[in-house]
Amino acid sequence: MGSTKTNAGNYFEDFKLGQVLHHATPRTITEGDVSLYTALYGGRFALQSADSFAIDCGLQAAPVDDLLVFHVVFGKTVPDISLNAVANLGYADVRFLAPVLPGDSVQTSSEVIGLKENSNGKTGVVYVRSTGTNQMGEVVLDYVRWVMVHKKDKDAPAPKPVVPDLPGVVDPATFALPMDLNFGNFDATLSGSPHFFEDYEVGEKIDHVDGMTIEEAEHMMATRLYQNTAKVHFNAHMMKDDRMGRRLIYGGHIISLVRSLSFNGLGNAMLIAGINGGSHTAPTFAGDTIYAWSEVLDKSDLLGRNDAGALRIRTVGVKNKNGSDFPDTGEDGKRDPNVVLDLDYWVILPKSTV
Amino acid sequence: MGSTKTNAGNYFEDFKLGQVLHHATPRTITEGDVSLYTALYGGRFALQSADSFAIDCGLQAAPVDDLLVFHVVFGKTVPDISLNAVANLGYADVRFLAPVLPGDSVQTSSEVIGLKENSNGKTGVVYVRSTGTNQMGEVVLDYVRWVMVHKKDKDAPAPKPVVPDLPGVVDPATFALPMDLNFGNFDATLSGSPHFFEDYEVGEKIDHVDGMTIEEAEHMMATRLYQNTAKVHFNAHMMKDDRMGRRLIYGGHIISLVRSLSFNGLGNAMLIAGINGGSHTAPTFAGDTIYAWSEVLDKSDLLGRNDAGALRIRTVGVKNKNGSDFPDTGEDGKRDPNVVLDLDYWVILPKSTV
Amino acid sequence: MGSTKTNAGNYFEDFKLGQVLHHATPRTITEGDVSLYTALYGGRFALQSADSFAIDCGLQAAPVDDLLVFHVVFGKTVPDISLNAVANLGYADVRFLAPVLPGDSVQTSSEVIGLKENSNGKTGVVYVRSTGTNQMGEVVLDYVRWVMVHKKDKDAPAPKPVVPDLPGVVDPATFALPMDLNFGNFDATLSGSPHFFEDYEVGEKIDHVDGMTIEEAEHMMATRLYQNTAKVHFNAHMMKDDRMGRRLIYGGHIISLVRSLSFNGLGNAMLIAGINGGSHTAPTFAGDTIYAWSEVLDKSDLLGRNDAGALRIRTVGVKNKNGSDFPDTGEDGKRDPNVVLDLDYWVILPKSTV
Repeated sequence: MGSTKTNAGNYFEDFKLGQVLHHATPRTITEGDVSLYTALYGGRFALQSADSFAIDCGLQAAPVDDLLVFHVVFGKTVPDISLNAVANLGYADVRFLAPVLPGDSVQTSSEVIGLKENSNGKTGVVYVRSTGTNQMGEVVLDYVRWVMVHKKDKDAPAPKPVVPDLPGVVDPATFALPMDLNFGNFDATLSGSPHFFEDYEVGEKIDHVDGMTIEEAEHMMATRLYQNTAKVHFNAHMMKDDRMGRRLIYGGHIISLVRSLSFNGLGNAMLIAGINGGSHTAPTFAGDTIYAWSEVLDKSDLLGRNDAGALRIRTVGVKNKNGSDFPDTGEDGKRDPNVVLDLDYWVILPKSTV
Repeated sequence: MGSTKTNAGNYFEDFKLGQVLHHATPRTITEGDVSLYTALYGGRFALQSADSFAIDCGLQAAPVDDLLVFHVVFGKTVPDISLNAVANLGYADVRFLAPVLPGDSVQTSSEVIGLKENSNGKTGVVYVRSTGTNQMGEVVLDYVRWVMVHKKDKDAPAPKPVVPDLPGVVDPATFALPMDLNFGNFDATLSGSPHFFEDYEVGEKIDHVDGMTIEEAEHMMATRLYQNTAKVHFNAHMMKDDRMGRRLIYGGHIISLVRSLSFNGLGNAMLIAGINGGSHTAPTFAGDTIYAWSEVLDKSDLLGRNDAGALRIRTVGVKNKNGSDFPDTGEDGKRDPNVVLDLDYWVILPKSTV
Repeated sequence: MGSTKTNAGNYFEDFKLGQVLHHATPRTITEGDVSLYTALYGGRFALQSADSFAIDCGLQAAPVDDLLVFHVVFGKTVPDISLNAVANLGYADVRFLAPVLPGDSVQTSSEVIGLKENSNGKTGVVYVRSTGTNQMGEVVLDYVRWVMVHKKDKDAPAPKPVVPDLPGVVDPATFALPMDLNFGNFDATLSGSPHFFEDYEVGEKIDHVDGMTIEEAEHMMATRLYQNTAKVHFNAHMMKDDRMGRRLIYGGHIISLVRSLSFNGLGNAMLIAGINGGSHTAPTFAGDTIYAWSEVLDKSDLLGRNDAGALRIRTVGVKNKNGSDFPDTGEDGKRDPNVVLDLDYWVILPKSTV
């Protein structure tokens, strides 16, 4: 007798507008996770690297990297939201709302904010707003993602289509920087970059120069660290019969890698305040070498602060080809096939003119 | 002049009945070890994942995974017990007697409780009861294992054969659950499984569905983390001339992997109370994908508690073949050659009827 | 428009005698880093393995492995000192001056103490004394290294040549052991070796027996953990066009690996007090198996202590060949081509005669 106690995940018709899903597996993020994150990506942003630097910036201790928080909060949604997903279509309105310190415990819930069945009657798009909270119930991260999910029963009736109105860009007026953060005595020698907020211009492009090759052991360890259970990342035996023929790397692994590479040119981008959107434009596999380049899309002052400003950055990840000629979508509308990630986000830099 | 300061290990004739070996290398288990353990296996059992969840269950903090404790305690015995082993024959009466919290320091001693020379006069079987203790001297783990060990001198006299009387099954009356543990307010949403003790039936089989491929870097990092020094796991140069032709994966790595896979179907199996026995029925190598299925062998109430019960589980690990048809020993007595592990153990689940 | 905000590193003519460079990226070394270090090398030296053992030796907690401190302090110098290096020529006068405990934040500065342009006019040798300090400003590590660096402009005038006078051997009178350290009750059972300071003789050679194979994921995780950014270790895409054809392993990874292997024969070598010099005599690559052997070069008492002494050790790392016949430079002056590391250093061992 076989049992049915395993998680089959939710199908399109299982989601209801306004439904709130409380996701499993709360997670205490520790210094151990921070060390692994450093070992996996080699990050050098000073605020996350040293308690001493963070204390000099007014914080109690080095905060956990924003993207590590993102991956942990995101990982919890996979069993409920995207186990039966055809594709992860997009993110929007990603806002980091409170710092996470080692020792904090994080959990995630999601509200269904949109549903739209596809015309084929076999799949539909589910929009969720996911919220990560800490052990005090404070929201640390809030974001929207939408995924295309299989229907289990093609005859299940289509819901009334609701597509949420999402901001194309997170409004800097909604940023929530850590309250005690103060870049008044920012040490740009220790941070490793002499370039402050004022030194960047809209339209400026930066080739981040360095490249990093990914191994199977690395992306699997990362993805397990985030307790992300999507099968495609772990099971070579299953994937050899897939169209890809091999394990697919979690898209978030590439986001973290390009963020780390972006240090060389954006070394003072101390925090990610928000992510406006992102596309994984091509799959990546073990053995691929990832490069990155960035473009400054916009600049913004911050309400009530004169020690820091926000840069809206577009960082493009490229595989097996360096970023020296800024591989991108050409004038003919064709995207360079080596481009694997196109990420649009806001970073916080100190101002030099305090 | 070459020195002889390296450890040659003990041979069969070096062991004496009643002898107590105090093993080297005490080890503080930290949050760093816990994070690595998560990165290596992807565990999602809520009690070990989050301090917040553990506190809601009456504990001070998330306890260290039982199997991580097992591997660390076990690793210390290798240089003294099994450096000259032909084969690791079995385990019995494995009992987890006190929780280990990050920061605790563990050490191990072993008593020789049985000796039996083999009729070939070249090897013998050594039975030891190994005990892991923390920095306060409290026993955290106690177990018996027996190994076949080479004699150094074939002419050494055979000891009087003594084979200890070992329980085939750990008696639930001897379980020692953490004193403060209380599942009275167990949150089965956060734990990720709606299935309580009462929901499982003896004879029920569960295919755990997911598969995970193992890389060389992963099993070696795990085995070094446990300070297990068995050469066969680390030395490709030596192993290429071995019958196997390559590095062999530590059997404990497979135990931890199938335990992690078993979450999908046994998500509320919060603790391992004891291990009744286990066999590594075939070797595993890097590149193998491990699947698992389980069978409920027995159920037991727990003395003096109405919030939890124990399930006796048999979990079978299978390589490069999924568990959907429960690969096992057939009626002809032939074991499926893809079966690599057969583990018999007790897990603690909350009751729904508190 | 491309920007020039990336770090181009310093060229030979950028260095001035007496110049002090404050390196970027302070780093808090945590229990997470310690666990990763164990997972990467499998160290078993008891003092670093367990708080309980360290407390019995008079310390507050297990100190961070000396070589982990070295790698972190060293890593910070790479972007400023050796990004344009042709070769890392040597180390001297490496002294560990204060223990680092988990939670300490380390940063590095370097003073240029020598400059000598090569006769080709294209490169020069830069000598720096690098100093690692903790968050209290205490020096934890001090060492000299010299590297051959490219000139950017061949017509830049040569500086007055200054070659510092460096000690061939660190003077034991300058050692700075942790003040509270006391081996009066040293437990040689728990430490795993019965061999004390008095048991070693000058001229004695020890084959450390064990071998360990290195994977790409391992050396890259290690090198990123140290925030060492040298491109040759990470970028397979770039290196496939290099003379080597593949990623080169960070020399410090081999130092840590042979130190770990040396436990089998030098198990009571509790601390490294200083490094006299070291040469990476051949490159290592993923897939290589590393063995090691050691020779006792000298012995020294320690000023004001009768519980410990210092052994001057030469440890030789060998790839893909075991150390049983002590591979070395022959009488014909030809070095065994499998030798990859020749390290000369001082270790501290307890005395048995306290």
